[in-house]
Amino acid sequence: MMNENEELKRICKEVIEQIRPDEEDRRRVKAVTDSIIAKINEKALEMGIEAHAISVGSTARNTWVRGEADIDIFIMFPADLSEVDLKEKGLALAKSVSDRCVERYASHPYIHAYFYDAERGGRRTEYEADLVPCFSVKEASLLKSAVDRTPFHNEYVVKRIYGFEDEVLLLKQFMKCLGIYGSEQRRKGFAGYLCELLILHYSSFAELLRNASRWQYGERIDLEGQGTYKGEGKDPLIVIDPVDPNRNVAAAVSEYSFCRLIDASRDFLVQPSMNFFLPRKEEPMSEAEFMNLVKERGTEFVMVVFEAPDEIEDVLFPQLRKAETSVKNMIERNGFEVYRSDVCVEGDKAFLLFELLVWSLPRIKKHVGPPVTSEYHSEQFKGKYITTKLGKKTLFIENGRYVVEVERNYTDVVSLLKNELKSCSLGKHVAESTDKGYGVFRNEEIKFSEGLGYFFRDYFGGI
Amino acid sequence: MMNENEELKRICKEVIEQIRPDEEDRRRVKAVTDSIIAKINEKALEMGIEAHAISVGSTARNTWVRGEADIDIFIMFPADLSEVDLKEKGLALAKSVSDRCVERYASHPYIHAYFYDAERGGRRTEYEADLVPCFSVKEASLLKSAVDRTPFHNEYVVKRIYGFEDEVLLLKQFMKCLGIYGSEQRRKGFAGYLCELLILHYSSFAELLRNASRWQYGERIDLEGQGTYKGEGKDPLIVIDPVDPNRNVAAAVSEYSFCRLIDASRDFLVQPSMNFFLPRKEEPMSEAEFMNLVKERGTEFVMVVFEAPDEIEDVLFPQLRKAETSVKNMIERNGFEVYRSDVCVEGDKAFLLFELLVWSLPRIKKHVGPPVTSEYHSEQFKGKYITTKLGKKTLFIENGRYVVEVERNYTDVVSLLKNELKSCSLGKHVAESTDKGYGVFRNEEIKFSEGLGYFFRDYFGGI
Repeated sequence: MMNENEELKRICKEVIEQIRPDEEDRRRVKAVTDSIIAKINEKALEMGIEAHAISVGSTARNTWVRGEADIDIFIMFPADLSEVDLKEKGLALAKSVSDRCVERYASHPYIHAYFYDAERGGRRTEYEADLVPCFSVKEASLLKSAVDRTPFHNEYVVKRIYGFEDEVLLLKQFMKCLGIYGSEQRRKGFAGYLCELLILHYSSFAELLRNASRWQYGERIDLEGQGTYKGEGKDPLIVIDPVDPNRNVAAAVSEYSFCRLIDASRDFLVQPSMNFFLPRKEEPMSEAEFMNLVKERGTEFVMVVFEAPDEIEDVLFPQLRKAETSVKNMIERNGFEVYRSDVCVEGDKAFLLFELLVWSLPRIKKHVGPPVTSEYHSEQFKGKYITTKLGKKTLFIENGRYVVEVERNYTDVVSLLKNELKSCSLGKHVAESTDKGYGVFRNEEIKFSEGLGYFFRDYFGGI
Repeated sequence: MMNENEELKRICKEVIEQIRPDEEDRRRVKAVTDSIIAKINEKALEMGIEAHAISVGSTARNTWVRGEADIDIFIMFPADLSEVDLKEKGLALAKSVSDRCVERYASHPYIHAYFYDAERGGRRTEYEADLVPCFSVKEASLLKSAVDRTPFHNEYVVKRIYGFEDEVLLLKQFMKCLGIYGSEQRRKGFAGYLCELLILHYSSFAELLRNASRWQYGERIDLEGQGTYKGEGKDPLIVIDPVDPNRNVAAAVSEYSFCRLIDASRDFLVQPSMNFFLPRKEEPMSEAEFMNLVKERGTEFVMVVFEAPDEIEDVLFPQLRKAETSVKNMIERNGFEVYRSDVCVEGDKAFLLFELLVWSLPRIKKHVGPPVTSEYHSEQFKGKYITTKLGKKTLFIENGRYVVEVERNYTDVVSLLKNELKSCSLGKHVAESTDKGYGVFRNEEIKFSEGLGYFFRDYFGGI
């Protein structure tokens, strides 16, 4: 019988065969990239724009997984150009070379372009590329916009990654299947650049897993040993940016993603398996299946539904998470108990889901007043609750404090949410959307869709 | 219009007229007391026992409220006598002088005796007296048993109380109506001796109230200025025993009694009224009235009923309170929520009452495991909950910890109590009694009685 180390090597080798683009793929992506760069540089000359294009990202480093070639091209402008000019000239230049394109916006506007490559026997293949204008600054730390660091990252990795590409591919595929690949707000996982740094630091996928399985909070990785980044004890993982020692490349990694990697590292090392590299392929949950689960669990599912604000996910998701927390706190402040909660965007709708352990309560509740020994506050309290003509309230002394029995404002979660959602901190766009109206649905009232089916499959799935 | 101070004086005067025994009452109680003492001393001589009797307590100090003459006679034995001899000789002597008697036990055994006084025109009047054997020690601090202090207390008060008797009567009656008179465990209020010391310290009932209305936790009163008692910050009120400076006379005063006096002091000073001296006369609550309240409140009442252990209240009540707390904690540990709780003894039954806000819960619950970063404990946890064949459990990561979804042992409070009451710390006698059997009843199942009617009237009454 093979020992586990051999088994691990065998599996990694098999995975690599499947996820590594073949030479022809790489050649064709490189050809398309080069041709776009040539077009941009040519067009810049024509238009009298001082700018040149470079290839960055995974396609520039051969660290892209088969079938997922994201061509990233940065158009470098002089650092003394104004932001307005950068935007205007950059976007005009990018549009002029594209066969078809849309303008997008992350921290900066950029062009998502489509190119048609007709090389292969006349059959047209479509390639997509992001064309991003940026400032060509002297050092990464002198950046004028967040994207200005990317060329430095690219240069750092390109110089060192040769020979380690397969290890990066393994790590990316592993994280993808765990649902923790990508630094976007929806996921809060590990960015591609971070994966590359981790491999450069630990030399191999297997060695990274061995280390990750023993990571502790505040784990610090500093490839160049020059890190000045302190953080405030809130980052579970700190990976000093080799091109900007005061920055944590892993700042976006959530506690969940950090723990998920640790957990999966241990499991994989104990029992290596191809399953860690195969995306979960699951059917969406059906409404009948959902209703069976509701019955079996005995909990109450309450969903707040509203029109999804027309914003990019990195803007929308933090607001949805903020709304989730704020509404959860309001529910619990009112005496109910939330078991779990989640958020979801499907089509043009956004959803806040609350699974409740306690969703209905008696009419009465205690209102706890000041300590009896506090003369002034006691007088105020008794004056307010007893002397007024609001109806006789029953007064108690409990644990040295006055306690008065009052009526609960809301005896069930649905009426609470229908009436008080707007009093929560929802975030600007979510607040604007719910201002236009929202629905509150429970259990069988929840309108199912394929998208919600996938969401619920995931919600009930666990790790 | 009279000012409030005059109104207060007028009310106190009126109360005094009603609660002060008249001269004839006092003379007759004194005569009975003297005759008992004479009999005891005579009998001691006859029996060759070295002992003598003294009158102590409120009847010895003229601080008894009309109609409530408790004759307390202490029989003093030499301090070098053995405890066995004290008990044997003391009880024999006490029994020999009584017309009828029963043996009782507090911290020490004593005789509760009945005497028939035939003075008034041949009509027999029955007097009751406690005859308590004790050691005649040199100083209160050298006591051999708790009762040995009493003669010192008596001597201290007798020497100083003349002229303040009426103020003591007012205070005792005031506290009685508040339900905080008496240091017994059921009540945890102010003992008669403590009332006398408070009056000696503040000189008058009104002055005591003025001070009490501003009392803070740890309020310290030291009449002789020699207190060495420290306490541990847990006594709300410290009144140094003038005859034993290392003892707190107010040690039995609960936080509730302390706060209740503060609250009533303020109310009475703002609006003096005879009502403060009139015992609440209320009808017991009817079962129909109770069921209406249950419906109106929306809470669930669950009662545990068992045979009241045959023990004195000072032994029984601390056990019932201990059981109440322990059961309440168990209920809340299981995820339910107690709104209020109380205990009660009626006839030969003892009752633990729990009013619940949450008494029924979904089948599932979270079982929170170790932090993911704790490798050893994570391995143990996952081994236990995942690898075993106990059925697949859903595993999550929440806030950096493993969480597994398990089935709740009890989904309602009644089945929890029916099955798990015995796992609580109930106290020896309560445990023995519930071992013989107990019932758990909810709402309309609770068997009403007049006694329970009074209990519920009080429970719902507030202060």
